[in-house]
Amino acid sequence: MATTAMPSAAAYEATVTAPVNIAVIKYWGKRDESLILPTNSSLSATLSQDILHSKTTARADPNFTGADTLWLNGTPEPMSASKRLANVVNALRAKRAALEASDSLLPKMSKWIVHVVSENNFPTAAGLASSASGFAALVFALANLYQLPEAKDGEAGAGRSTLSALARLGSGSACRSLFGGFVAWEMGTHADGRDSVAVPVAPASHWTDLEALVLVVHDGRKGVSSTSGMQTTVQTSALAQERFKSVVPQRMFDMKQAILRKDFDQFAETTMMDSNQFHAICLDTFPPIFYLNDVSRAIIQLVTDFNATPVAGYTGKYKVAYTYDAGPNAVLYLPRQFVRPVLALIQHYFPAPTDVPAADYFADPYKVGVNYPAPSSTNVAELAKTKLTPHAPGAIKRILHAKIGDGPRVVYAGPATGAGETGLMGKDGTPAKK
Amino acid sequence: MATTAMPSAAAYEATVTAPVNIAVIKYWGKRDESLILPTNSSLSATLSQDILHSKTTARADPNFTGADTLWLNGTPEPMSASKRLANVVNALRAKRAALEASDSLLPKMSKWIVHVVSENNFPTAAGLASSASGFAALVFALANLYQLPEAKDGEAGAGRSTLSALARLGSGSACRSLFGGFVAWEMGTHADGRDSVAVPVAPASHWTDLEALVLVVHDGRKGVSSTSGMQTTVQTSALAQERFKSVVPQRMFDMKQAILRKDFDQFAETTMMDSNQFHAICLDTFPPIFYLNDVSRAIIQLVTDFNATPVAGYTGKYKVAYTYDAGPNAVLYLPRQFVRPVLALIQHYFPAPTDVPAADYFADPYKVGVNYPAPSSTNVAELAKTKLTPHAPGAIKRILHAKIGDGPRVVYAGPATGAGETGLMGKDGTPAKK
Repeated sequence: MATTAMPSAAAYEATVTAPVNIAVIKYWGKRDESLILPTNSSLSATLSQDILHSKTTARADPNFTGADTLWLNGTPEPMSASKRLANVVNALRAKRAALEASDSLLPKMSKWIVHVVSENNFPTAAGLASSASGFAALVFALANLYQLPEAKDGEAGAGRSTLSALARLGSGSACRSLFGGFVAWEMGTHADGRDSVAVPVAPASHWTDLEALVLVVHDGRKGVSSTSGMQTTVQTSALAQERFKSVVPQRMFDMKQAILRKDFDQFAETTMMDSNQFHAICLDTFPPIFYLNDVSRAIIQLVTDFNATPVAGYTGKYKVAYTYDAGPNAVLYLPRQFVRPVLALIQHYFPAPTDVPAADYFADPYKVGVNYPAPSSTNVAELAKTKLTPHAPGAIKRILHAKIGDGPRVVYAGPATGAGETGLMGKDGTPAKK
Repeated sequence: MATTAMPSAAAYEATVTAPVNIAVIKYWGKRDESLILPTNSSLSATLSQDILHSKTTARADPNFTGADTLWLNGTPEPMSASKRLANVVNALRAKRAALEASDSLLPKMSKWIVHVVSENNFPTAAGLASSASGFAALVFALANLYQLPEAKDGEAGAGRSTLSALARLGSGSACRSLFGGFVAWEMGTHADGRDSVAVPVAPASHWTDLEALVLVVHDGRKGVSSTSGMQTTVQTSALAQERFKSVVPQRMFDMKQAILRKDFDQFAETTMMDSNQFHAICLDTFPPIFYLNDVSRAIIQLVTDFNATPVAGYTGKYKVAYTYDAGPNAVLYLPRQFVRPVLALIQHYFPAPTDVPAADYFADPYKVGVNYPAPSSTNVAELAKTKLTPHAPGAIKRILHAKIGDGPRVVYAGPATGAGETGLMGKDGTPAKK
């Protein structure tokens, strides 16, 4: 277990944040369970870190004794307890060791015990997968702690892709959180996974009109874990191979074109069709896997009906696109001009829970919701011709508003101060008191 | 409109009943909309007619004037109002005309107006598709009215398959209701559809241990019609072609083997996987089509958990199989020994609605439910290890118990008496008073 000492003068630490990414071409299926090599390429947008990120402080101290330890949201665990966690730390430590071997003046950090404190600034109750941003933050923190050249390479450099492959060892989709903007995870062909890495498609600055709404859907049941779910799909779905072999390669091409051209119609259609197909192969799995519930279905209906209702002066085929990961929550991608109308529709058909303060219901760092008028039912009826009827309050528990954002950020990297001011770790090498 | 006269001495009539069939390999997709030729073969079991059938009386009378008319559940409509209905009647009339042309002594029934009265003995509230049994009954009634040789051929003869092709013109799956037992609809290859017919796989007497429970699920919304739904699937689903081309041919083979060997494990697995895949390609359709709701999903979970729970002395892998058509209702196929345990589970996890008499909730002509003890929660917990919790009363509205049954039956065929005793038509050529 962890020691509780003051940081030694030799100690180093790094604190970083890493973003959440939401795939528009879905990853579902591994061709190598241990190296986490996927059966198909995937593509995501990185969400802004203002209200959604993982923050991680890593410290290496020659005076630490015991085992490498991670405090995740306050709970300590030896890193060896998780094979994936151990794989990631060992891979980064090996890179540090190689550096030290080539330059004898470097501190022998690779020999020192590491302490890591990690937190998500979004509640786990939000139902968002935190493993992607969490493993991206871990890899980026250790890479900065160890002063690896890959960490200095920036989002345009190949070093970042190298780090993405290490994040992939922790959680497949984590590799995509090493970049901002629009990010492809190319499946690669090599058995050792060296070409199964994330690569940037376009930075966040490329398409600033695109925004996102995360709709957290109430769900009573615990879904199948994605690790075991995708194993069963690969083993039992007769349709999954067709998706891997034929459908996704074409969609990766289409999606990259859509992003490069900022063609929202192509982006939206491919996003929605790929979300549908991911859930279709889950249903073609035996026993079938269901992540969408009746509220998820109703949101799809509302989006479909809103898209089918003309808006004066708008010639696009789509105004908003839905996508669903391995759970009932919807993420909507949409041009900025439709954020307010869509919020009005959501507010009308999925009223806020009655037992939650309004500020907790709608997390809106960009203030689009400030003074946002409660829509009259007439206005809403004009917005979308739908047969949907309003749900009981609380069917959607929470709404988060995000933009497309940048990749991991270094908050601090250098000698350990233990001040707990920029990082999450106190002088004693455990989580800082708040 | 219909005339209201006494039947003339020359009038003829026929009254028949036809069964419901529930597919275990699903039909979804047409390669020819007008001839109703499918994109894949399908296979069904015919349910017993004791509580589920359509009954039809057809009369041809030289004194009828006006238009061919159908009374469906009491409401008259000229048959020309429905293209499909007109196609079916015209096809049968043409066969009669050909007979008359070859034998000048035959009454010229093909020149006479036809009145048809048809009823389903199951409430439309049951949510079961009535078009299959309805069109099968219509074709069989007219074939008997017209004394076509195909009508005399019995279930083993090729004439019945010829009639099935005419029922297909009304509603694709209706062709399978021309036979009892286990029935394949072979998709055929000819452009004119002459080889797209139903053929018997095995009669009901072949596998008498197999029974069915129909679970009618409450659903607030109206689903997409199957006609427009399957068009959209063929046009937009990237996975549907793989199903048509590769998956279904293998499953047709597997299913026939399962039935011929009375191999319930193979039957159950193929049935469940094919139901799942049908709904998967609906979800891969754009916009997506959902027929399963949260209650349907919960039934699948319960079946999956019950199958996974060992029963002393039973070595089979499966004890019950679910299948879902284009709606939320489940049909469970199961060996007789599991009817009572499954009823106990359903009764526990989906309690009867509180506003419906028990006899209306559970239609059980075979009396398996008589004195069936309300299970204790301990017993139920032993039956199936599940995390499911009981639903509110009425999530399942109605349960019907059926066996595998025979094909259409002739109630009467001959000169019109108009007595309304064996048929549905009164002396005046309209529905008999009850």
